Amino acid sequence: MTKNELPLSKDEILDAAEQVLRRYGPDKTSVVDIAKVLQVSHGTLYRHFESKAALREAVTSRWLHTSIAVPLEAIASGTGGSAVERLRLWLDTLIQTKRKFAAEDAEMFAMYANVTVIEVEMISTHMYRLIKQLEQIIEAGMASKELKQGNSESLARAVFLATSRFHHPSHAGEWAMGSLGEDFESVWQLLLGGLT
Amino acid sequence: MTKNELPLSKDEILDAAEQVLRRYGPDKTSVVDIAKVLQVSHGTLYRHFESKAALREAVTSRWLHTSIAVPLEAIASGTGGSAVERLRLWLDTLIQTKRKFAAEDAEMFAMYANVTVIEVEMISTHMYRLIKQLEQIIEAGMASKELKQGNSESLARAVFLATSRFHHPSHAGEWAMGSLGEDFESVWQLLLGGLT
Repeated sequence: MTKNELPLSKDEILDAAEQVLRRYGPDKTSVVDIAKVLQVSHGTLYRHFESKAALREAVTSRWLHTSIAVPLEAIASGTGGSAVERLRLWLDTLIQTKRKFAAEDAEMFAMYANVTVIEVEMISTHMYRLIKQLEQIIEAGMASKELKQGNSESLARAVFLATSRFHHPSHAGEWAMGSLGEDFESVWQLLLGGLT
Repeated sequence: MTKNELPLSKDEILDAAEQVLRRYGPDKTSVVDIAKVLQVSHGTLYRHFESKAALREAVTSRWLHTSIAVPLEAIASGTGGSAVERLRLWLDTLIQTKRKFAAEDAEMFAMYANVTVIEVEMISTHMYRLIKQLEQIIEAGMASKELKQGNSESLARAVFLATSRFHHPSHAGEWAMGSLGEDFESVWQLLLGGLT
């Protein structure tokens, strides 16, 4: 007899998986542990996710979406005001969010950093979404003549890649260094010179 | 009775250490293994290097100097011709050298990638040297009016940081992706827009 007689929703499963992954860490978590929290058999869980890796990927993907992409989307889709200021706010928010999570949500961040290396397709999708947001800001800036005309898609990709040092998880170890703010400022000024 | 009655030179020790580190990998190498190759006691070796970590750091530091910094120095100190072309050649050489080593000299590259994380001071010195080379190129470009006037030190640092994705070892896993050449081209065009 299971607690859930209704079919499990994807979010219920991911909530339980996230909770267990945070508690035990990715290595020590088993699908059985997650099934236990949901009070279902692990067979039931396997009908929804074919492996622990698939569950971990889905948890990370949801976390990236709600914690990173959605808040940034609100900035990117803003209208009115300066596109340059919006671009700077978007980058600052991305960088601050990553740093905050690296420090305060270390389990999820470690899982994400790990996924970055192995789940290339999922990360490409996430990157693609963020670069599209940058493109939106850059296009607004071109329309308002704040930014010079150019290929907004290629420029958006370039801005994202050129700021990797400040938001890519494999640099997290360097974020604690004192010169980070000054370093970003020098990159920002250089990029802005190329955009305006 | 040791083979070397003359004092060991630093380079002799590092040659032996590099040979053993390549053969066994950093984890399995011991100072005793290195001493054996040199036919000295490990006590003799400890008089030169206080730990295996110190030896590994010295080997990596020498490798960075001879394989990366010296060839780039030859480009940076070149005179005549276009500073923009020199800047591009310098970046291309840095990126190609790193990629080549990641693929063809995997043991040294893995050791270097590891050192990047733990030996912050050594890596800062290496970075500082490379950024000084960039500064030299940028100053030449400002002198010849190819590049617009500005703070060459800050611009050199910005160019180095903004291209991290293409030369920092923690991105080595991404270098095999197909879009790398195109990605670098978009970053290069953006940076060039900021510099000229």
